[in-house]
Amino acid sequence: MVWPPYEELLSRHGETEGVTLDINADRYRESFEAYSEIGATANDGLHRLALSEADRTVRDRFVDDLEALGLDVRVDEVGNVFGRRDGTDPDAEPVLIGSHLDSQPYGGRFDGQLGVLTALETMRTLVDSDVDHRRPIEIVNWTNEEGSRFKPALMGSGTFVGEFDVEETLAATDADGTTVEEALEEIGYRGTEPCEPREGIHAYLELHVEQGPKLEERDRSIGIVEGIFGMAWLEATIRGESDHAGPSPMHARQDALVAATDVVSGVRRLSNRLANDVVTTVGEFEVSPGSINVIPDKVEFTIDVRSYDDDVVAELVDRVDAELDAACAREGTTYELEELWRIPHTEFAESVREAVLKSAQARDASHVEMVGGAGHDASYLNDITDAGMMFVPSVDGKTHNEAEFTEWDDAIAGARVFADTTRRLAR
Amino acid sequence: MVWPPYEELLSRHGETEGVTLDINADRYRESFEAYSEIGATANDGLHRLALSEADRTVRDRFVDDLEALGLDVRVDEVGNVFGRRDGTDPDAEPVLIGSHLDSQPYGGRFDGQLGVLTALETMRTLVDSDVDHRRPIEIVNWTNEEGSRFKPALMGSGTFVGEFDVEETLAATDADGTTVEEALEEIGYRGTEPCEPREGIHAYLELHVEQGPKLEERDRSIGIVEGIFGMAWLEATIRGESDHAGPSPMHARQDALVAATDVVSGVRRLSNRLANDVVTTVGEFEVSPGSINVIPDKVEFTIDVRSYDDDVVAELVDRVDAELDAACAREGTTYELEELWRIPHTEFAESVREAVLKSAQARDASHVEMVGGAGHDASYLNDITDAGMMFVPSVDGKTHNEAEFTEWDDAIAGARVFADTTRRLAR
Repeated sequence: MVWPPYEELLSRHGETEGVTLDINADRYRESFEAYSEIGATANDGLHRLALSEADRTVRDRFVDDLEALGLDVRVDEVGNVFGRRDGTDPDAEPVLIGSHLDSQPYGGRFDGQLGVLTALETMRTLVDSDVDHRRPIEIVNWTNEEGSRFKPALMGSGTFVGEFDVEETLAATDADGTTVEEALEEIGYRGTEPCEPREGIHAYLELHVEQGPKLEERDRSIGIVEGIFGMAWLEATIRGESDHAGPSPMHARQDALVAATDVVSGVRRLSNRLANDVVTTVGEFEVSPGSINVIPDKVEFTIDVRSYDDDVVAELVDRVDAELDAACAREGTTYELEELWRIPHTEFAESVREAVLKSAQARDASHVEMVGGAGHDASYLNDITDAGMMFVPSVDGKTHNEAEFTEWDDAIAGARVFADTTRRLAR
Repeated sequence: MVWPPYEELLSRHGETEGVTLDINADRYRESFEAYSEIGATANDGLHRLALSEADRTVRDRFVDDLEALGLDVRVDEVGNVFGRRDGTDPDAEPVLIGSHLDSQPYGGRFDGQLGVLTALETMRTLVDSDVDHRRPIEIVNWTNEEGSRFKPALMGSGTFVGEFDVEETLAATDADGTTVEEALEEIGYRGTEPCEPREGIHAYLELHVEQGPKLEERDRSIGIVEGIFGMAWLEATIRGESDHAGPSPMHARQDALVAATDVVSGVRRLSNRLANDVVTTVGEFEVSPGSINVIPDKVEFTIDVRSYDDDVVAELVDRVDAELDAACAREGTTYELEELWRIPHTEFAESVREAVLKSAQARDASHVEMVGGAGHDASYLNDITDAGMMFVPSVDGKTHNEAEFTEWDDAIAGARVFADTTRRLAR
């Protein structure tokens, strides 16, 4: 779809009164520093895998903070944690705000956590200021957004919207064979509330770090997220013949690694082809038997292709297959290609995008419309309600590592617009 | 050096009488089948890592077989096992024959074992036939030729010739931290005889499977080994930046895997450059962090380059460095390159090569002179005595895997020439 220009949006909803909310910037930062100590790494990062002991500790802290605000706290079957503040209209549909508290292995402090704590600061400000809102507002911490310990990623939100079956989610295992159900029971977060597509949520709003360099490059504090890239995850296996690296002449070899490296080069060349937003990555890459003087006979690797255009993603999958075919024909190897996951692009709700835009304008916060490249819980929420997202800048675009950083001025600007937008949506 | 033509060798040593020895082909094969059961895999391969329980069992069997022949059995400090039959001249220097009984992980039955059992069949035939020889003949099983469990490879022979220090050899550890000394004591093969460069060995002879396709391609039963390739083992580390596969635009990436795959392609292009015998292999290849949606920030990999010309090997090392430099300049990554090992080419003794050639001609066995691509214990023995090798064909050139195979007709032809050559050397 084509979005209407800013001017048209402004003319539709001119009012800006009664929707600002003055957050406490010091309290916001103190909470961030305190939460960041739970699962902290030596290099100022965060190692807080889903349903680990560190995750238990941070969840306990989160629940304590929600109860201290007098919120009604509930935990569902897959460990999603909700805290509700009633509105003035008992029949109104609630606004849901939040993100996730789990981290990547040796990841950063901002990914997910900043969104949850921005929602928490919004809740605190509402309670402190004794501000009324017509709609109930619920804060949420989604279970296992990252997918590092248990697959798939976006587990809590995906189950909540019905994309994943509850029983399958609970049966998912980590590398040690521990199930999600066992891990939830171990940390005390196997809740009783059913995890199912809930009727009647008015809107969902999530703040997240951009995880890319675009806001920094354009010197803006806030990204109003139009949507999220579609993507496909593929797994390729190339099989050749293992043999001794010395006496095996080159003409007789079927070297799985040589074929696979041809494919990696081909996949890199696919980036910025077909559309200018295409990104391609080979992330996992396992070589067998992995001995210094043995020709590799097997390489298993993953290919991640993304674009905002779902047709382009489909064409990329075909072209990856063609690269494998060509490389294996050259080297005399064989291959299999499996599609692990494909998710269409997300277009967030115009109503939420409008609300963020109006709030940013009212605050004179520098902002830009943009598309996100990473998957987020908000994408799944968009299936059952009007969902939207705001990004704040990532220094050097870095994420999923300990160097992840967002300037506090940007975080605070983002939190102000987030609080205002929440109040705007809850009118 | 340039070898004299066959005709000249023949004219130098025309005699063929009194040197043939009729092995028992059935007994030879039965022993091979029986030894192959020790450490057998489900796919007719062999998993008999150095100093493992399977290695203990096969060594016990070997020692029993030597003692049954009335040989004087000795075990040295690093577990090399010798069995000696005296000659008629008590002052003559001995002829040493043998190979190794350890295998690659899930390797084949022929690599090493066939050479030991060919030497054993030679010994049995000498004893059975009550044949005298002027020189003593010693059979040997070298400890840890493969280098799979403990590094370096060629451990027993390398220590025997003084290339490795006895204390360092005993202190080498496997992946679990067990030392060679502990493993030797565990299996009862920490012998008392000093392991040191022994004075006065007349010659060393080893039969081995070719591990390449050249004999099969030329339809010959026996390879008379002129020498062994020189080689270098290198280890490269490329460092980039990890980041999220979605929101990180291509222009901002420093992808260690993309750079490393460029190098693998470059290394492949180096094969058959500079000299037509050049072979190049990347065998180990480890990618970090190895997550489907994270750009790799580190790749560690090994490069194996070989040629019969040591100057070519030196130039190859420089060119690998140049490939790394170019690939990292393209991708914005950095690298380190370490040389793990370099071994010059081996030229085996003309005397042994002559003896093999004469024996092959006397038996009308099809043969060809050739250079070996793999390292062998014989290369180290060549440092202290006149050493030489014979190859028998490997079907499809396969080795270091369970499919390794040699036709029995070829093995028997090889064993006959080996026995004759041993007797010839021991006159």
